[in-house]
Amino acid sequence: MKPVKVGLLGLGTVGTGVVRIVQGHQEDLQSQVGSPIQIDKILVQNKAKSRSLAIDHDKLTEDAWEIINDPDIDVIVEVMGGIEHTKAYILEALAQGKSVVTANKDLMALHGPEILEQARENNCDVLYEASVAGGIPIIRTLVEGFSSDRILKIMGIVNGTTNYILSKMSREGASYEDVLKEAQQLGYAEADPTSDVEGLDAARKMTILSTLGFRVNVALEDVAVQGISSVSKEDILYAKRLGYEVKLLGIAERQDDQISVSVQPTMVKASHPLAAVNGVFNAVYVHGEAVGETMFYGAGAGELPTATSVVSDLVAAIKNKKLGVGGRQGAMVYKEKKLKSDEQISSKYFILLHVADRAGVLARITQVFAEYEVSLESVLQQPNPHIQEAEIIIITHDANKAAIRKVLDSFGSLDVIRRIKSMYRVEG
Amino acid sequence: MKPVKVGLLGLGTVGTGVVRIVQGHQEDLQSQVGSPIQIDKILVQNKAKSRSLAIDHDKLTEDAWEIINDPDIDVIVEVMGGIEHTKAYILEALAQGKSVVTANKDLMALHGPEILEQARENNCDVLYEASVAGGIPIIRTLVEGFSSDRILKIMGIVNGTTNYILSKMSREGASYEDVLKEAQQLGYAEADPTSDVEGLDAARKMTILSTLGFRVNVALEDVAVQGISSVSKEDILYAKRLGYEVKLLGIAERQDDQISVSVQPTMVKASHPLAAVNGVFNAVYVHGEAVGETMFYGAGAGELPTATSVVSDLVAAIKNKKLGVGGRQGAMVYKEKKLKSDEQISSKYFILLHVADRAGVLARITQVFAEYEVSLESVLQQPNPHIQEAEIIIITHDANKAAIRKVLDSFGSLDVIRRIKSMYRVEG
Repeated sequence: MKPVKVGLLGLGTVGTGVVRIVQGHQEDLQSQVGSPIQIDKILVQNKAKSRSLAIDHDKLTEDAWEIINDPDIDVIVEVMGGIEHTKAYILEALAQGKSVVTANKDLMALHGPEILEQARENNCDVLYEASVAGGIPIIRTLVEGFSSDRILKIMGIVNGTTNYILSKMSREGASYEDVLKEAQQLGYAEADPTSDVEGLDAARKMTILSTLGFRVNVALEDVAVQGISSVSKEDILYAKRLGYEVKLLGIAERQDDQISVSVQPTMVKASHPLAAVNGVFNAVYVHGEAVGETMFYGAGAGELPTATSVVSDLVAAIKNKKLGVGGRQGAMVYKEKKLKSDEQISSKYFILLHVADRAGVLARITQVFAEYEVSLESVLQQPNPHIQEAEIIIITHDANKAAIRKVLDSFGSLDVIRRIKSMYRVEG
Repeated sequence: MKPVKVGLLGLGTVGTGVVRIVQGHQEDLQSQVGSPIQIDKILVQNKAKSRSLAIDHDKLTEDAWEIINDPDIDVIVEVMGGIEHTKAYILEALAQGKSVVTANKDLMALHGPEILEQARENNCDVLYEASVAGGIPIIRTLVEGFSSDRILKIMGIVNGTTNYILSKMSREGASYEDVLKEAQQLGYAEADPTSDVEGLDAARKMTILSTLGFRVNVALEDVAVQGISSVSKEDILYAKRLGYEVKLLGIAERQDDQISVSVQPTMVKASHPLAAVNGVFNAVYVHGEAVGETMFYGAGAGELPTATSVVSDLVAAIKNKKLGVGGRQGAMVYKEKKLKSDEQISSKYFILLHVADRAGVLARITQVFAEYEVSLESVLQQPNPHIQEAEIIIITHDANKAAIRKVLDSFGSLDVIRRIKSMYRVEG
């Protein structure tokens, strides 16, 4: 039987995992696609470097174009990372009729639509399961499992670093700074943690998930992003006392034809399945019209989970090619994008205020909420002896984002309010 | 393009859902398989019955063989239920080279190996995603997502009725009898709830999941089954106080080549993702060697979730047929079955004893544990004024099932022990 020939771009930890799985599970893989799978050429930075992997030296090359332009190669697996160069390789590979499997979330978040369009035009696939929540088959589930359903909401814990930090703050009552430092020492957070803790990594993944879920080209700049660096241990303590956990949630919602996508620290009701997702784990919660509530939980990263996802995509790409149904995924983004305005984005909010401890304060505050038609679910006032002020904790009913902003603006001119200590979106 | 012709056995709620989805999503489905999908003949009990569905009356038949023996029909979808007759239809359909999609867990749990073998011999598929946890693509995930991994453990909340009952007992402190009665009124439990509450339904599903996960023919009689009818509200209260929830868990484990499969009420640590699965929801937790811990959560049943699963299987069956890779799933059961003995099945246990309230009792009890080499993680003794006796709550370290049984047997001859109030396996 004629083997399927694969070109591999990158031989780091994930690339090595891919080679190991393809070599070690040849029989299983062959039974799935109907012919042998052969990794024919591998792009490396340095051919001379010694490697732990038993691999034919002739297969290595330092020239990506040698792989892209090889007419014998059927599928490209891209696990080298990078944006501009990598994009050029992938676009040309697709132009030559090669399907592509990639683990590159940055590339797909930034240039996904262009790449998928190129794939569609050439009847090829670009599959990228490993780019979001490495060990969870969430993209396949959104595309195949929900193909006959209509997705209403996607909520994701899609960044392991921030979930590790928030879980540990919650469990141990530790401060953000202390836990971040420890996470850096353990290798769970990078030396420059900005991309993770400011929510950018999560936003890229939500771009990908919401594009797939809603069949609309969501761009990174459509996502309202807020990170976790301002989350205090006191906030988490309050949340717990009220029956919530604080999580960095990506939230994508659709109502009729309008969508909104955001990433922010959110209070999640303890009884919601997302509240129990701790440590470096990822989870994606999907609400479909037919299927109802579902959630997919697992490792967000790691060499083997990621390589396993890449190989599953490789199998799917080969199957589609042989069936003559390649390039359909790109075509699935067919709806016009209509973003909700702040007036249309509705949710519950938690607000913690420090106020002067005297009569009539609560009345003045609740009056502001009434003015902007924000109704309240619960209000708790208590003295705080440490600061010689009172604390007021408010949870609103569903309110729109614009009204909440107006309420907070009005608080600025209310002298009885010493400070707006914190505010969180509330879910579940 | 020549359409794929489907024969549908059964037009109840799920069958109607299947027709609706195939009609309503024709374009999406065609883009996945490369040709139109046409439901050509439908088996009903009574052709004359009026139906809500707009369907060509000529397609209906009361004779299953008319569908099975029709050479133009490529795939059979079985949503009629039943065992012996249904099995005969499916075996003959496979013999004629037709792939089969079924939602019939009873059939697959009892005759799965024979049916899958017949499929393999005829290069056809039998797909049955909808038979376990209707809205969760767990079978596809075990077969495809884990194809290059090795599954070590599967734990499932796979029966919605019992999970509804236990969740409600936990949340409201209500008794088993009261909640069961209410569940029956709401239609969440059947008039004769035996199959659900005694764990038989869960055992059938665990038979299916463990067969797939371990590539071994697990039979229903290999599953050690205990139901929830003896779970008291006091047990649940104790569990909560110690940081656990009581869940009816199916547990399938593998160590080297040996497996064990069981269903029993289990105390699950509150921090474990399974502990947060409440109400009629289902969840399956899978621990794979490469991918680590994953969990899949969603609706366990319901017309639309189930029909959605059936249609996804239909798409997969058609794809495999066109690729010429049908019948591989049956071949995946290739390992010899070796069941663990009770001496080899190890876990933690919770034991609640009512004992005489006098000196030296605890010493005599802990001595029995020591005698059978069961070590203890925690021991709590407290007076119980209601019964004028003391209560002793013990959580063991990992201990084998045989040793625990011997300990309990020895307690029978210990006069200071008034009664063994309850015992639970502990997970998480």
